[in-house]
Amino acid sequence: MTKRQSRCADSTITVNLDAIVANWRFLDSLSAPSTKTAAMVKANGYGLGSGAVATALAAAGCPLFFVASLGEAIELRRHFNKIGINDISIMVLHGAQIGQEDALTAHQLVPVLNDLEQISRWQLFANKTGMTLPALLHFDTGMTRLGLDVDQADWLIQNRGALDGLGIAYVMSHLVSGELADDPVNARQLASFNELRSWFAGVPASLANSAGCLLGTDYHFQMTRPGIALYGVHPLETRIPNLQSVFDWQARILQIRMAAAGDRVGYGGTFELQRQSRIATIGVGYADGYRRQLGGKATVSIGGNTAPVIGRISMDSITVDVTDLDQNSLRAEYASLIHDAYPIEAMAADLGTISYEIMATLGQRADWHYQGGSF
Amino acid sequence: MTKRQSRCADSTITVNLDAIVANWRFLDSLSAPSTKTAAMVKANGYGLGSGAVATALAAAGCPLFFVASLGEAIELRRHFNKIGINDISIMVLHGAQIGQEDALTAHQLVPVLNDLEQISRWQLFANKTGMTLPALLHFDTGMTRLGLDVDQADWLIQNRGALDGLGIAYVMSHLVSGELADDPVNARQLASFNELRSWFAGVPASLANSAGCLLGTDYHFQMTRPGIALYGVHPLETRIPNLQSVFDWQARILQIRMAAAGDRVGYGGTFELQRQSRIATIGVGYADGYRRQLGGKATVSIGGNTAPVIGRISMDSITVDVTDLDQNSLRAEYASLIHDAYPIEAMAADLGTISYEIMATLGQRADWHYQGGSF
Repeated sequence: MTKRQSRCADSTITVNLDAIVANWRFLDSLSAPSTKTAAMVKANGYGLGSGAVATALAAAGCPLFFVASLGEAIELRRHFNKIGINDISIMVLHGAQIGQEDALTAHQLVPVLNDLEQISRWQLFANKTGMTLPALLHFDTGMTRLGLDVDQADWLIQNRGALDGLGIAYVMSHLVSGELADDPVNARQLASFNELRSWFAGVPASLANSAGCLLGTDYHFQMTRPGIALYGVHPLETRIPNLQSVFDWQARILQIRMAAAGDRVGYGGTFELQRQSRIATIGVGYADGYRRQLGGKATVSIGGNTAPVIGRISMDSITVDVTDLDQNSLRAEYASLIHDAYPIEAMAADLGTISYEIMATLGQRADWHYQGGSF
Repeated sequence: MTKRQSRCADSTITVNLDAIVANWRFLDSLSAPSTKTAAMVKANGYGLGSGAVATALAAAGCPLFFVASLGEAIELRRHFNKIGINDISIMVLHGAQIGQEDALTAHQLVPVLNDLEQISRWQLFANKTGMTLPALLHFDTGMTRLGLDVDQADWLIQNRGALDGLGIAYVMSHLVSGELADDPVNARQLASFNELRSWFAGVPASLANSAGCLLGTDYHFQMTRPGIALYGVHPLETRIPNLQSVFDWQARILQIRMAAAGDRVGYGGTFELQRQSRIATIGVGYADGYRRQLGGKATVSIGGNTAPVIGRISMDSITVDVTDLDQNSLRAEYASLIHDAYPIEAMAADLGTISYEIMATLGQRADWHYQGGSF
């Protein structure tokens, strides 16, 4: 990848749109040609920039996009309008909340209806406007988070008139443990979902998130809707060779200095140097999403060599022990924060979290570069 | 505070600019009238919006602002220009990095020079342009992070010509453990700094961050530069009654539903309900900076009642047990994420981090509201 380092920010994040498109194509290839492959671009495209990601995927043929909130959906619709991409469906996972009806229709958005209250709200608006309003119907099959519960689903099946005036594009549900291929919950959810959808003959269905795409064609129905795998994170415990990592995170070496044995490094003086040392201060900190708990755990790569992060993480900088690096390596202007010896999965493990959270909270202070994506 | 809830985003953050100004005035009152009180607005104003915060503080009389990087400084300068505020000094903590000289002068920025390399770079540029260029000189007295180390300081004292062509506005250093008022490191740093500054007779000096403002007038010199205390976080272990909290964080209740004893909640089904329960799903998740490790630890406030967060935190939502809340409370449209029974300090403790990190990584997806700030 070409590096286009800015001189203004202290950290740079480079997103490889070609890799995201390649991941989407790979996920699309797993299901039958008749199955559509949507793209999850909620949370600003899992932190990487929903506009750039959606542009690249739409240009590659992705027809359907999911976001979480109305606000995200409006932003994405405006983006598509601005660049002249039409005929894209945008689905809003959190549905039609109070007072959002006008904005949903004005921006041609499709709410995912999660309970009877949302269904009645959307139907009332359909009656009021005289339009047939599109929607997805979400049934909960085990998440206990969003979607109609068992009682509400039973009621709806007995009272189909509650959907009059609505055009149900898909019925859907969401997997609890898709990332554990052997978890019996998957088969139970699949069975529940198949029973539910039998009451909605002819309506297309969708169940699979990223992990579901990899669980086999039984899970694909008429639409899959991968998220994290688009962004190069392996949703199952086994790595999928076809998934490419999609971003690169670097930060400027602000200063390299000597320090004596016995000197302490960073806030609180928690790290005491055991030898005369060379310390590099690097321009990324917890305000950039380089989390505070990485102090004493993470490594960076400088000129191809690994160096440990020592002392506390500051808001805007970290300190790295580069005593063992040769002078040639130290001519580098930038350090790689995620690298072969410290992939994002290792960082997530050190934080007791998942890669998703790291990506979704990457800071906006970096220079963001996008590569590829022209189709 | 007036609530101006948007219908688009699922969470709202309301920043009280009057409280930030009041905190600045309180900190300013601690030092002598001749001591200037600068404001740290790096990391986008500790996450709360550097433009709005700096506008309010400048209008209240704050003459000096600090940011971390050139990029932040240019953004702030453009903001001040746009709203017609001139005569504000903007200091760049990370100094003059390679290739940044032109941009620094073009935007009238003052670099903090952290080592001899930066000093020589800035001096070369002064010679090239024939201008006297302003700068701060940063001496390290124990952080081992940024600033001239002992050997470099000694060299500079012997080679004062290295500063020819530069207008040194302040000499400065940074406290390692200011938040621990009794830590002997504070007095040692103060002594080192006083010795260093004795070599720069007549040059104003600055040592105090927020904690330093509270350590007594010996630490104030000619400028203090508080950060976190402006934003209502107590820098010392004892609470300072005069500091006001400055922001409010709420999220929409997306859905309230019943669930049976034995049902499991959220990804992985990690939380099993022990009784028939009422569950509220709330529109904030780890992509908004509501961290994943808060699952099973945090509480929210709904209609004045506290409810526990159960199950895993999702990217865009959390689930809360509201079984014990009365119907009246459940008419609320929003839940408070930080509240009297769960202040930001409690959230930070649950995360094993400090309040700074929570604030600095609040998500951009929220609706941001600013109140007050007109002076």
